[in-house]
Amino acid sequence: MATATKVKIKPLGDRVLIQAVELDSEQVKGGIIIPDSAKEKPQEAKVIALGTGAKDENGKVQPFNVKVGDLVIVSKYGGTEVKFDDQTYTLVREDDILGVVQ
Amino acid sequence: MATATKVKIKPLGDRVLIQAVELDSEQVKGGIIIPDSAKEKPQEAKVIALGTGAKDENGKVQPFNVKVGDLVIVSKYGGTEVKFDDQTYTLVREDDILGVVQ
Amino acid sequence: MATATKVKIKPLGDRVLIQAVELDSEQVKGGIIIPDSAKEKPQEAKVIALGTGAKDENGKVQPFNVKVGDLVIVSKYGGTEVKFDDQTYTLVREDDILGVVQ
Amino acid sequence: MATATKVKIKPLGDRVLIQAVELDSEQVKGGIIIPDSAKEKPQEAKVIALGTGAKDENGKVQPFNVKVGDLVIVSKYGGTEVKFDDQTYTLVREDDILGVVQ
Amino acid sequence: MATATKVKIKPLGDRVLIQAVELDSEQVKGGIIIPDSAKEKPQEAKVIALGTGAKDENGKVQPFNVKVGDLVIVSKYGGTEVKFDDQTYTLVREDDILGVVQ
Amino acid sequence: MATATKVKIKPLGDRVLIQAVELDSEQVKGGIIIPDSAKEKPQEAKVIALGTGAKDENGKVQPFNVKVGDLVIVSKYGGTEVKFDDQTYTLVREDDILGVVQ
Amino acid sequence: MATATKVKIKPLGDRVLIQAVELDSEQVKGGIIIPDSAKEKPQEAKVIALGTGAKDENGKVQPFNVKVGDLVIVSKYGGTEVKFDDQTYTLVREDDILGVVQ
Repeated sequence: MATATKVKIKPLGDRVLIQAVELDSEQVKGGIIIPDSAKEKPQEAKVIALGTGAKDENGKVQPFNVKVGDLVIVSKYGGTEVKFDDQTYTLVREDDILGVVQ
Repeated sequence: MATATKVKIKPLGDRVLIQAVELDSEQVKGGIIIPDSAKEKPQEAKVIALGTGAKDENGKVQPFNVKVGDLVIVSKYGGTEVKFDDQTYTLVREDDILGVVQ
Repeated sequence: MATATKVKIKPLGDRVLIQAVELDSEQVKGGIIIPDSAKEKPQEAKVIALGTGAKDENGKVQPFNVKVGDLVIVSKYGGTEVKFDDQTYTLVREDDILGVVQ
Repeated sequence: MATATKVKIKPLGDRVLIQAVELDSEQVKGGIIIPDSAKEKPQEAKVIALGTGAKDENGKVQPFNVKVGDLVIVSKYGGTEVKFDDQTYTLVREDDILGVVQ
Repeated sequence: MATATKVKIKPLGDRVLIQAVELDSEQVKGGIIIPDSAKEKPQEAKVIALGTGAKDENGKVQPFNVKVGDLVIVSKYGGTEVKFDDQTYTLVREDDILGVVQ
Repeated sequence: MATATKVKIKPLGDRVLIQAVELDSEQVKGGIIIPDSAKEKPQEAKVIALGTGAKDENGKVQPFNVKVGDLVIVSKYGGTEVKFDDQTYTLVREDDILGVVQ
Repeated sequence: MATATKVKIKPLGDRVLIQAVELDSEQVKGGIIIPDSAKEKPQEAKVIALGTGAKDENGKVQPFNVKVGDLVIVSKYGGTEVKFDDQTYTLVREDDILGVVQ
């Protein structure tokens, strides 16, 4: 669960720091349910911090399609886990985010 | 079956949210039948929501070739399933949509 | 066999809807024969519908090199089969079409 | 052996229609011999028809480096065989042609 | 542990010279903990030297997103180890750096 | 051994026609020796004919870095062998040529 | 060990001719040690000759980041070995050079 804790990791490039959200938590908006039978396991997570941004071929930084606080759908087994202040986060590339829960 | 339910997921990039359509449903237009013997299993589905759009190399968002409500043919085993309001949806990339049923 | 049936599928992108042609049919022009021993199995088919067209990097739609009605040579095992009005069609990418029978 | 028969297949894109040439035939110019021990089996063939041409990124059709009638060296196992008028032909991409016999 | 030792290796291109940081060291800022169960093993490290820089397609050198002294998160098993003055360093590509600890 | 024989094959694209040089021959300049223990087996060869040249994305033919008569180092197992006038030649891509013996 | 011997091989493209340096030799600057336990085995080597240079997409030759005489770190198992004047050299691509020892 993401709190007002100051974020301690700045993702690089097109990476985003997210934190998995428990499905039975009250913080889950809209009641999205991930079917157990899904072949490619998705998971809901909250966006905690955006990266420095990918660059196009002219070196211009590209904006992100997600923003801090967004609830997103990601593949369960992607990215890299890190832990601080007793909480587990995941660093994923933005292209691995499938959609934003509204 | 897609209803007037407010869509709860905004797909990212070139992704599209679709919902599988039962072949014996009255909603199937034109009576397209997917042969059981087909090697690459296709499936009919309805387009529920378009993504934020892919960007070309100048960062310009590319329009989609499908629109919300289109009945499309997709590979049965592609994409990622999510579920909300007791319904199952799939997030697929637009390039994985083979055609639009007219 | 393609008839005057209204086509019910609009292929997306560089895809083309084709229908296999029986080799002993009178509709086969020119008597092209596919050798049984061919390693990469080709097949004759009729072009039924063109896709929305591939786009170049400026977003400009590229014209097709085939047109509706063309008799073409394709690999037997490529593409995705769909069926409607008791007929079987195949959705293939244009680049998988090897040549046009004249 | 290629004759004055009207060619019945127009290759698409960067493909070329060729016909294998028997090595002991009088039509073999220059006496090129393909060693049996060659790891990547080459074969001599005559160019029967050129494709519609590959396009560069601006959509401009690129010229071929071979012309109809050229005797060329190709890999024995590449391409797709088709047969008409009792003769066997092969559809290959121009980049699979290694050289032209002069 | 990085000291004031003059760095003896200038990385080439988009590579960066880093030195692993012991997690129980006082030098670890912010108390990032790498979970043992993480599938893709990350590791904290200090940036010791930047490379000559990647070049874009016009040959212009691209700036780095990290600077000497940054504490970064990298995959434990990436890069190439070298050793001098009794210390072990690792050469990694900047894109393999997941984030910067703040 | 290359002689004044008129070359009978014009390589296509970025390909080059070369002929292996015997290491104990007097024609070997500089006494380059290929160690038996080398993992990627190199071989000396003489350049017999240049191809039509690779094209850049504007269709402009790129010059070769080797010229007819150059003694070059190539991988022993690359390319395609052809034989004429009792001699064996090899067709290789220029990028597979490692260096020129001076 | 590289001596004043005239170099006999001109590398092509982005390749560089290097010669491995014995770690206990006095010529090793700075005492870089390659740990035996390193997963990707690196090795020190001296740059003997630069290639003709890689070209960008406009055909302009790109400068090298190393120069003749540089002591560099490379992967032990990359490149192709050649031997002349009783010495063994290796041809590697510049991108396989990890860093320069200063």
